[in-house]
Amino acid sequence: MDKGKKKHILSPHRLKLHEIIFEADTPFGKLFDVVLLISIIASVGVVMLESVASIKAEYGNILFIAEWSFTILFSLEYLLRLYSIGHPTLYARSFYGIVDLVSILPTFLSLVFPGSQYFITIRLLRMLRVFRVLKFVQYLGEANQLAEAMKASRKKILVFLLAVLIIVVIVGSLMYVIEGEENGFKNIPQSIYWAIVTLTTVGYGDISPQTPIGQILASMIMIVGYGIIAVPTGIVTAEFTKSKNEKISTQACPSCASEGHDHDAKHCKHCGEEL
Amino acid sequence: MDKGKKKHILSPHRLKLHEIIFEADTPFGKLFDVVLLISIIASVGVVMLESVASIKAEYGNILFIAEWSFTILFSLEYLLRLYSIGHPTLYARSFYGIVDLVSILPTFLSLVFPGSQYFITIRLLRMLRVFRVLKFVQYLGEANQLAEAMKASRKKILVFLLAVLIIVVIVGSLMYVIEGEENGFKNIPQSIYWAIVTLTTVGYGDISPQTPIGQILASMIMIVGYGIIAVPTGIVTAEFTKSKNEKISTQACPSCASEGHDHDAKHCKHCGEEL
Amino acid sequence: MDKGKKKHILSPHRLKLHEIIFEADTPFGKLFDVVLLISIIASVGVVMLESVASIKAEYGNILFIAEWSFTILFSLEYLLRLYSIGHPTLYARSFYGIVDLVSILPTFLSLVFPGSQYFITIRLLRMLRVFRVLKFVQYLGEANQLAEAMKASRKKILVFLLAVLIIVVIVGSLMYVIEGEENGFKNIPQSIYWAIVTLTTVGYGDISPQTPIGQILASMIMIVGYGIIAVPTGIVTAEFTKSKNEKISTQACPSCASEGHDHDAKHCKHCGEEL
Amino acid sequence: MDKGKKKHILSPHRLKLHEIIFEADTPFGKLFDVVLLISIIASVGVVMLESVASIKAEYGNILFIAEWSFTILFSLEYLLRLYSIGHPTLYARSFYGIVDLVSILPTFLSLVFPGSQYFITIRLLRMLRVFRVLKFVQYLGEANQLAEAMKASRKKILVFLLAVLIIVVIVGSLMYVIEGEENGFKNIPQSIYWAIVTLTTVGYGDISPQTPIGQILASMIMIVGYGIIAVPTGIVTAEFTKSKNEKISTQACPSCASEGHDHDAKHCKHCGEEL
Repeated sequence: MDKGKKKHILSPHRLKLHEIIFEADTPFGKLFDVVLLISIIASVGVVMLESVASIKAEYGNILFIAEWSFTILFSLEYLLRLYSIGHPTLYARSFYGIVDLVSILPTFLSLVFPGSQYFITIRLLRMLRVFRVLKFVQYLGEANQLAEAMKASRKKILVFLLAVLIIVVIVGSLMYVIEGEENGFKNIPQSIYWAIVTLTTVGYGDISPQTPIGQILASMIMIVGYGIIAVPTGIVTAEFTKSKNEKISTQACPSCASEGHDHDAKHCKHCGEEL
Repeated sequence: MDKGKKKHILSPHRLKLHEIIFEADTPFGKLFDVVLLISIIASVGVVMLESVASIKAEYGNILFIAEWSFTILFSLEYLLRLYSIGHPTLYARSFYGIVDLVSILPTFLSLVFPGSQYFITIRLLRMLRVFRVLKFVQYLGEANQLAEAMKASRKKILVFLLAVLIIVVIVGSLMYVIEGEENGFKNIPQSIYWAIVTLTTVGYGDISPQTPIGQILASMIMIVGYGIIAVPTGIVTAEFTKSKNEKISTQACPSCASEGHDHDAKHCKHCGEEL
Repeated sequence: MDKGKKKHILSPHRLKLHEIIFEADTPFGKLFDVVLLISIIASVGVVMLESVASIKAEYGNILFIAEWSFTILFSLEYLLRLYSIGHPTLYARSFYGIVDLVSILPTFLSLVFPGSQYFITIRLLRMLRVFRVLKFVQYLGEANQLAEAMKASRKKILVFLLAVLIIVVIVGSLMYVIEGEENGFKNIPQSIYWAIVTLTTVGYGDISPQTPIGQILASMIMIVGYGIIAVPTGIVTAEFTKSKNEKISTQACPSCASEGHDHDAKHCKHCGEEL
Repeated sequence: MDKGKKKHILSPHRLKLHEIIFEADTPFGKLFDVVLLISIIASVGVVMLESVASIKAEYGNILFIAEWSFTILFSLEYLLRLYSIGHPTLYARSFYGIVDLVSILPTFLSLVFPGSQYFITIRLLRMLRVFRVLKFVQYLGEANQLAEAMKASRKKILVFLLAVLIIVVIVGSLMYVIEGEENGFKNIPQSIYWAIVTLTTVGYGDISPQTPIGQILASMIMIVGYGIIAVPTGIVTAEFTKSKNEKISTQACPSCASEGHDHDAKHCKHCGEEL
């Protein structure tokens, strides 16, 4: 963020507001963020409790008021965020800006479409801010490392998912032909659902093969599912191990400033200069 | 493919056809492949929808026509492929040639054996062409790396599978004796099916031990199954880690003959000599 | 433990008692510990058997007497431990001190709250002493290595768990809206329970989606759950591999200062100098 | 095996028999082993089919005769093995000797105890000989590598299993108190069985928690079970990766003949001699 630029745009009290709402360095800023996090958890808790019939029967009114209070609070907060930032459109289009907006919409939508208030659990995504608030910079680093290991193995995982998809569609269709409607395999999409339930070793048992041939095919897909979990695990682990090793290289070349040299390197691998 | 040879064999318009059907470099060739891929997905979708009773009742005729249209299209395409290639028998015997043929047979077979049309989901295997069409050369590389890691650990995985097989047969037989028919273990093959369901941690629950001794034996096989998943995972991971490391070291220094340089290295990291 | 200090505080027969109860080097000390371990297992076994209705009906009296005998024995042992140690409050506040106390409370509590005697299975935690008794020092080392690998990957695992938590709450709420009470998703907390059952690939099948959209969402969370198990596995494995490597390199050569020698090395592998 | 010694003990025709039965280098020896393997698989298949009621009803007599024929054959083979070997007692006490004997007993026992014939699936253990017969020496190497990785991580896995055991006993007891008999948790041993079913992510669903508190505790143990599978996987993978690296060291010291030197070693790490 270019603070120098913002100072020219924002008036002093908007600047003060910006500090409280967007940053966590000042006492008020930190207090604001902590209150916000507690409110988010509380508001999600309210919606959860509202879905329990026995609790709603008894405390329905209180929960209704609480839900609307939180939503109005979050709406005010959203407006203040828009007001106190230099480029409101930039914020509104950012990840957090969209999450903040989506977090307040369900309650308003529930006036038109009853039941949509349950979508406000999406508010939990706002909790990702917890990292910034609690100054868990090292945690952010860990999260980044996780994300990067994921990103680096993205292509391999896509190839793997495509293979899994083709397997479940073909096996699902075969099972539909073998077992048929009388054994719970009502149609191909549902048989594919069964194949996914089986391949991922979840195994609800709401649908299960009854014929000997079906059970043999099911056994085969189970063993495949049991075995190929090794593939994503192997991919991610190799990525983690690699990133671990790469972390060891820290020295920069004094001549060409390139990095990433091995520990035992005596000369820069790019320009040949002694390290 | 030896293009020079083909030019001698094929007449100009067959050559043109070859370019469109078999290659993806020209605009028409690419268009053909994209249309083909969409048709494959659409035709599989049609068969899936046909299996849903409620949809078939209403749109049965349209789906029937659509299925036959796709099959006739794919049949024409298969004939054109045979016509436009230099060595038709070579293509017909290749992996893609067989898949292409098998993809159109089920619809024709369904005239004689109703229900066999559902096997056309095998058409999805044709989607493996997606890699060539979309020029995902790097994805192919990833797929190859996956395949090679699999291949390298082939023997270990076979030994592992043999061990798993012996375990499930012995445990299945024991459970048949312990639990017996009255608890759902109707015969040894079905008890082996149960053992596979349990060892792979799928656990449908359609058959589950009822006697204390059966539950103790089941607990043991569960813990074994939970633990030995570490084996294929360990094998594949070690293979991935290895292939990662191998990608780094190839070149030897011309001056000091040291090895283990990075791919981007221009100078030996030990003596500084240019590589 | 500063034994020199204790000698000043404890009288000779308390010192003798200390040796028997707290240490396992003397024959009596070892005998005491072995008897203690057997008693712990036996007392837990008694409580287990007591919970089986048919066994309680027949041997209820014997089990009742056995349970109280063990509890009185452990109570005496606890008092003797307090008596024979130099700093009773230090012991009472230590991990083992608390476990020892908590292990005898449930039986006494069962006089006031029937059923609380089943909590005495917490006594099993006392079995962690087994390592010291049986001089499995190397096992302790292994346990420490496990614990350290866990500790080192603590932050990554916390980030991972937070992500899992956010996923199950959001998916649980969505499923409640999609499936509703009539399909077993009675309220949001229970839907979250279902999401956890599914994501962890346990899959009881007591609640399972019935609508097509619900089954599609369930399929997605299954594949996510099946895939992301790679993350904790990757983290822990990378940690293990790392700690393995670290165990090798410690000593530097006194002549050429090269590092990375094996533990059993007596000569520098680079210059041949004695280490 | 000390062949020189055997030649003194065995008469020529016993030696000939020994070659056929115990070795697989001569054509007859190989033929014998292949016939034996096929017989083992066939005899296990016969017993499996016998357990299927509908098949037994129709082909009961044939299967009965087949089973006894195989058993008499294997009994003769066992006697010939004893006769043709130099040290019969050594063979009788060896792993294969015991397996060979145990493989024929169930059929004879079934005369006294009906049903015991199903235990002959233990015969499958004889199939481990397949490795020798088919000259899969490299497979044996792979199997050894698997076995060694297991052996090296033995202690860590024992510590892990002890921890798992303590967890399931404590959680099982808690669930018995929380859920009680009315929700299927009939007694503590069965609750422990449930805890194992859940922790290993098998999840039959024959017993599942019904109360909110029970579902919360179940969720916790599921996430623990989902997470700690990383531990054995990490252990075994680290072992595999290690053994991979160790395989690189091949050179023996010319002076002290010690092995296990690193690739970059110029001097023996034990005696300092140049390599």
